[in-house]
Amino acid sequence: MDYFENVPKVQYEGKNAKSKYAFRHYNPEEIIMGKPMKDHLRFSVAFWHTMTEDGSDPFGDGTYQRNWEGSTPMETAKNRVDAFFEILEKLGAEYFCFHDVDIAPQGDSLKEFLENIDVMTDYIKGKMDKTGVKLLWNTANMFTHPTFVNGAATTNNADVYSMAAAQVKKGLDVSKKLNGENYVFWGGREGYENLLNTDMNFELDNLARFYQMVIDYAQKIDYHPQFLIEPKPKEPTKHQYDYDAATAMAFIQKYNLEDSFKLNLEANHATLAGHTFEHELNVAKNYNALGSLDANQGDLLLGWDTDEFPTDIYTATLAMYEVLDFGGIAPGGLNFDAKVRRTSFAMDDLILAHIAGMDTYARGLRAAAKMKDDNFFEQIIANRYESFSSGIGKQIVENKEDLESLTNYALSLNGVENKSGHIEHLKSLLNDYLV
Amino acid sequence: MDYFENVPKVQYEGKNAKSKYAFRHYNPEEIIMGKPMKDHLRFSVAFWHTMTEDGSDPFGDGTYQRNWEGSTPMETAKNRVDAFFEILEKLGAEYFCFHDVDIAPQGDSLKEFLENIDVMTDYIKGKMDKTGVKLLWNTANMFTHPTFVNGAATTNNADVYSMAAAQVKKGLDVSKKLNGENYVFWGGREGYENLLNTDMNFELDNLARFYQMVIDYAQKIDYHPQFLIEPKPKEPTKHQYDYDAATAMAFIQKYNLEDSFKLNLEANHATLAGHTFEHELNVAKNYNALGSLDANQGDLLLGWDTDEFPTDIYTATLAMYEVLDFGGIAPGGLNFDAKVRRTSFAMDDLILAHIAGMDTYARGLRAAAKMKDDNFFEQIIANRYESFSSGIGKQIVENKEDLESLTNYALSLNGVENKSGHIEHLKSLLNDYLV
Amino acid sequence: MDYFENVPKVQYEGKNAKSKYAFRHYNPEEIIMGKPMKDHLRFSVAFWHTMTEDGSDPFGDGTYQRNWEGSTPMETAKNRVDAFFEILEKLGAEYFCFHDVDIAPQGDSLKEFLENIDVMTDYIKGKMDKTGVKLLWNTANMFTHPTFVNGAATTNNADVYSMAAAQVKKGLDVSKKLNGENYVFWGGREGYENLLNTDMNFELDNLARFYQMVIDYAQKIDYHPQFLIEPKPKEPTKHQYDYDAATAMAFIQKYNLEDSFKLNLEANHATLAGHTFEHELNVAKNYNALGSLDANQGDLLLGWDTDEFPTDIYTATLAMYEVLDFGGIAPGGLNFDAKVRRTSFAMDDLILAHIAGMDTYARGLRAAAKMKDDNFFEQIIANRYESFSSGIGKQIVENKEDLESLTNYALSLNGVENKSGHIEHLKSLLNDYLV
Amino acid sequence: MDYFENVPKVQYEGKNAKSKYAFRHYNPEEIIMGKPMKDHLRFSVAFWHTMTEDGSDPFGDGTYQRNWEGSTPMETAKNRVDAFFEILEKLGAEYFCFHDVDIAPQGDSLKEFLENIDVMTDYIKGKMDKTGVKLLWNTANMFTHPTFVNGAATTNNADVYSMAAAQVKKGLDVSKKLNGENYVFWGGREGYENLLNTDMNFELDNLARFYQMVIDYAQKIDYHPQFLIEPKPKEPTKHQYDYDAATAMAFIQKYNLEDSFKLNLEANHATLAGHTFEHELNVAKNYNALGSLDANQGDLLLGWDTDEFPTDIYTATLAMYEVLDFGGIAPGGLNFDAKVRRTSFAMDDLILAHIAGMDTYARGLRAAAKMKDDNFFEQIIANRYESFSSGIGKQIVENKEDLESLTNYALSLNGVENKSGHIEHLKSLLNDYLV
Repeated sequence: MDYFENVPKVQYEGKNAKSKYAFRHYNPEEIIMGKPMKDHLRFSVAFWHTMTEDGSDPFGDGTYQRNWEGSTPMETAKNRVDAFFEILEKLGAEYFCFHDVDIAPQGDSLKEFLENIDVMTDYIKGKMDKTGVKLLWNTANMFTHPTFVNGAATTNNADVYSMAAAQVKKGLDVSKKLNGENYVFWGGREGYENLLNTDMNFELDNLARFYQMVIDYAQKIDYHPQFLIEPKPKEPTKHQYDYDAATAMAFIQKYNLEDSFKLNLEANHATLAGHTFEHELNVAKNYNALGSLDANQGDLLLGWDTDEFPTDIYTATLAMYEVLDFGGIAPGGLNFDAKVRRTSFAMDDLILAHIAGMDTYARGLRAAAKMKDDNFFEQIIANRYESFSSGIGKQIVENKEDLESLTNYALSLNGVENKSGHIEHLKSLLNDYLV
Repeated sequence: MDYFENVPKVQYEGKNAKSKYAFRHYNPEEIIMGKPMKDHLRFSVAFWHTMTEDGSDPFGDGTYQRNWEGSTPMETAKNRVDAFFEILEKLGAEYFCFHDVDIAPQGDSLKEFLENIDVMTDYIKGKMDKTGVKLLWNTANMFTHPTFVNGAATTNNADVYSMAAAQVKKGLDVSKKLNGENYVFWGGREGYENLLNTDMNFELDNLARFYQMVIDYAQKIDYHPQFLIEPKPKEPTKHQYDYDAATAMAFIQKYNLEDSFKLNLEANHATLAGHTFEHELNVAKNYNALGSLDANQGDLLLGWDTDEFPTDIYTATLAMYEVLDFGGIAPGGLNFDAKVRRTSFAMDDLILAHIAGMDTYARGLRAAAKMKDDNFFEQIIANRYESFSSGIGKQIVENKEDLESLTNYALSLNGVENKSGHIEHLKSLLNDYLV
Repeated sequence: MDYFENVPKVQYEGKNAKSKYAFRHYNPEEIIMGKPMKDHLRFSVAFWHTMTEDGSDPFGDGTYQRNWEGSTPMETAKNRVDAFFEILEKLGAEYFCFHDVDIAPQGDSLKEFLENIDVMTDYIKGKMDKTGVKLLWNTANMFTHPTFVNGAATTNNADVYSMAAAQVKKGLDVSKKLNGENYVFWGGREGYENLLNTDMNFELDNLARFYQMVIDYAQKIDYHPQFLIEPKPKEPTKHQYDYDAATAMAFIQKYNLEDSFKLNLEANHATLAGHTFEHELNVAKNYNALGSLDANQGDLLLGWDTDEFPTDIYTATLAMYEVLDFGGIAPGGLNFDAKVRRTSFAMDDLILAHIAGMDTYARGLRAAAKMKDDNFFEQIIANRYESFSSGIGKQIVENKEDLESLTNYALSLNGVENKSGHIEHLKSLLNDYLV
Repeated sequence: MDYFENVPKVQYEGKNAKSKYAFRHYNPEEIIMGKPMKDHLRFSVAFWHTMTEDGSDPFGDGTYQRNWEGSTPMETAKNRVDAFFEILEKLGAEYFCFHDVDIAPQGDSLKEFLENIDVMTDYIKGKMDKTGVKLLWNTANMFTHPTFVNGAATTNNADVYSMAAAQVKKGLDVSKKLNGENYVFWGGREGYENLLNTDMNFELDNLARFYQMVIDYAQKIDYHPQFLIEPKPKEPTKHQYDYDAATAMAFIQKYNLEDSFKLNLEANHATLAGHTFEHELNVAKNYNALGSLDANQGDLLLGWDTDEFPTDIYTATLAMYEVLDFGGIAPGGLNFDAKVRRTSFAMDDLILAHIAGMDTYARGLRAAAKMKDDNFFEQIIANRYESFSSGIGKQIVENKEDLESLTNYALSLNGVENKSGHIEHLKSLLNDYLV
């Protein structure tokens, strides 16, 4: 069945050969800096936003018009996989991501849930083999079910902790089965609702303990996806433990997890934490922890996670610049952790919104590559910091000075001269690259 | 001269024997949990907000009416010290804090500045000896002068880096001379105005290098105040490197500075970073890095650092609870990093505002001590996490379980039962403690 | 059936005679400023948060444990009414509020929905007659159903506009039937998701047109509840048209609706708009448009509507001060538009949370009344503005001056002297009233 | 003297014939939609940010390198005017704006200040006559001087109110003398620091009274610039009375000032109030109150007024679309209420930053004009609201329906069908216009 067969299409026959819909900027095979655009971008479609959501929000019921509802949960689950791979094919996206609960009905017991996961991942594996599509990452949803009302690995309830362990063990088994390139932890309920009744230190010790079990089990089954922690500052809990990249790195270092864990960074989570997306990428880069990206965007005038499809070319360009500067995002990728607006409820919108996101990042890649080619930022940086490339500056960087020697040097100076950063001019030049 | 002699006073003869002004709650000698209230609170007055500010803001000139202007910068500087110790005495505050530029004119050269610091710290030492007042901490102001327009230890200019080294070396010398109990680094310009022309990684390497020079010099002169980093997320730079407690801990760990550095936490900086003050204290506690406090408050509906005197009894109580739980704040203290509003421009307001702050924290201490006595939070926590004190929970905490054993345990469960947190009731009970 | 019979209770036998649960501060019959506390506060319980919600949030399923589920929608609806009046009785609350969809199943058609409303309001009327409980206000929910995805009275779809008209006509009929004292309009979807595809002017014209139809119909059936618009800045739409009190007043004036419409103000909506609750009350008072209150609170560090039960005594006190200053809130009241946290999922929490809220506002009332008795704010204001009570100031207020005469007066002055506002001292004194 | 003679220049000989610096997009004489680009944009340079600021911020001293300091205040004032007109000429900007204190030293008395204004405006008039540059607007600075610590027209001090009257009377005289096209009121201190000691209603009555005196005096001298109120939500006061466009319109209507007052809207003020710039323009348009624009931008991750030069092409495009839709901004204009960053302290930056802003708005104009030509938004809107152009929708718009007739219509419907807004696709198409 072609789920989109009767869906009215807005535009056809674009640059992307795999899609009948019109890409205006994304051209998967176009060579940019020595490799195809698609290998820079490694686009991934998110199963949850695309297949299981209904458009409901805290004030309203679902609005999305979807045609894959079956007569049983398992039939619906299979229909969704069929439709999902149809979308992947239309978009020419080579990766996907999912939570366990996205693909398999939870049933009435943990046992049933785990069995459903087995059935559904067999089914998905068949689709992957046939299409060549790959698993960017999977994860365990340990935040939706009431069981996890007080957290999963940071719960106050040891039984709940065990349930979380069972889901993650299965998640690692699935990762191995489907050759997942990464495995993600987003701590949906790992945080606190109120500090008054919370023992944060105990909860974080338990979280680190949990991650150590994960490392040990991966060792045991000899499968080693890149483990990723995904920071977010707030929502659903009042305070999420993995607030932002730096907070996650403080935790990772405290518990000596640096060798196994990197970061999965999301644009909307960055801005909720008060940072730009490129800032978060830069921080991760500095800790050698840039793992993968959730390519979406928020509304900076709103205070919650809107998970919009990315259309801002400034952010796309600067994020792709960081990625190029890091030498590429693989084994990570660009996952569209984005949902169509509640008012974009037609089937068509699923395709159009992904095209909007892919075109935006294609534009960003092109602009970033041009800046790389021109050494645009490199020249600015080299010029701005040149005082550290010789003389006293070089001595400092080589750790040959101390407070006393620098004091003597400073006393010998006849004033200090700084240079203007010309930032307004620089931003104007940046505009020329974007367009 | 009595600078406040002719100042009309609003109220007299309060509980605090050292002050003619009316404290309604602070009673320095009252025994709380085994020691005098003043030893719990270790109140400190900030030289800058109290003595050198004029009430100007980005849209307006100074309004404060002050009577210590002299005919030369050095005369003014000495008058300020006289008036400052008069205020300390009136308040019965035993500690104070200052930046180098607060107490000594910068003159026309670094040499002159350093000489002025010597003269003025001699003068201050005399006052300290006479009054018994102690130095909680000093610090170097490396953010006001145009020299530091692009940062101090994170500057792009090696000459500026050297100037910063000279100021900090002198700061450590002063700390030794005045028996400072702590030495603070607040990175006023250590951050970036715009990421486009910034090499964040290089700048942070240089900052760590700077701190290592500090540790080495302290070793050399054999004086060891507690070193403190003071986090702040933004303002004056668009992004300050020491964003919040967790970010500072990520940095401290990355560069192996844990043994020498703790945190100086400010209430207004906490809320600017999206956290409660008690959250920041709790984070620091968990990293064993709770150093000292800047007791002020912000306006959560405004987006900048208002540095108001603390009058919110919720925050004061929960902060003092964290302090009691940590076993006290010494060698740190509670420094009023707070300024009177531009509309509170009378001399009198300097006294009244500090009394407001001291009374607020006295109230907070009393309420927190009562909760400690009652094991209020301890009981809530013990009850809430009891599942980890026996059975599978105890096994988990003792690192005796793994993903497989927990999966088996989880499969044996017949559902999971959670307990309500009753948070609304708890907040209502908290109100009873406050009042 | 007693729905709470087997619910474990935390505390019993408080001050409020009607409740077995312990109120510690609310004493309904206590005389404050000449009338019983309950007549000042006019507490109302919200049907939706209390009876129909399940604790779900955008990231998680429902958690609330409730025992009133029936075998058909109508049976559930009746059980809810029974349980609701049981709660009202336990709390001693004399008012309630509801949306049409809260109390009646929507069924498969508008016709069925309207019939269900008739049945259920008959049932509710019986309960009201028996208990003496009164209807503070009812309203139409025109934001949850997918029909209203693009708004109700500001929809782009004329059929949807008609559906909205039908719901509101029935709402007015119900108001008359149940002697509602007010009728509320909260524009859940009256706003825009994105300005790019919105004709704001057209939509607002249509909204005003809708309100005129409401006024006309009330005239026709000769029933005149106080009409109230409830401002909110954002959520669910990106931009709600009734952003805050001032925005609502701009609209009301533009379309000449002043004679019929006042405001229903919510604390959490105020802070989302960047205002304190007392600011919004003050604005409404100045436009003679203070109608009724939604007594809840938000978390100022979060960017969405948390609808928490009010426990902040500062806000409760200052809000009650505004109410006393306005001469009372009748025919409005204090409706608890608040929901128990997702982690407070026990039946018990419904009672405990309302007690927390009622005790908080009882405290606020007592403190505000004490300040009124002492003329606390009146004296401050009178003193601060005294220059306008005589001389040139009086001339100005009496409209006897112009720019030229004032210029002459100003030229005759030898400088201008202002007085300090002593705000820190004032806030400290306020603390004494609160506790 | 050529103040910029020895200033190193980054680029020369651009599209803008009047400037030796390179404009890459602004071409003043290019015809867009029937008139020269410059007549659409009506660019204005702000005297204060350009000539009198020094780069200081709340944490740092001035950094700007300027060469127009004279030996007396009046000599400096004249040098500034010379340099300012040199900048205007280099940029090819035809308008300018100023506060009274920008151009004239305040001296030691009101009398001296008013005399200085006379001298300086004579001098400016000479420059205007010679160059053809026009005055977009002037205004009175009633927020910087300590006199206005508690407000100007909303002060609690009648003497201060008179001082404000004198400044504004002179401002109107100057407007007449220099043929100002508008006169602006930005209420820098018209708001409150703390509601506790504020009588908001009294203060707003006085403000309206003040505006009436202004209208009367303009009548008397028979000069009628467009009066403009400039909204801002906060800073410097905690709450500014003219919070946003809607709040200003509520005030304007309450006091019947619609015939004389329109709005001057600033991008950074819009975002501080939680709105997009285009939203504020749209609101003003709907009240027929779109007066003039302050073209700058804020940083949405910061909570204060950064007044950056505008470089965001999204905002510039959507703002220019609103302007074209309104039929042009005249007699208003686009004033660069923007300052170079503290780190852009070179003389050169003054030119480069304005070019950045002018190029940005030139781009925005081109994109907006293209969308207008294509009826891009018009078609979207027409299609989206088409149900109101016939049948029941037309009846509604023509006020021929009521709640009862619409109920009957709604009951006749067999469900309601909505259309998707396709917003993601629309935003992607918008990107194509921008670049």
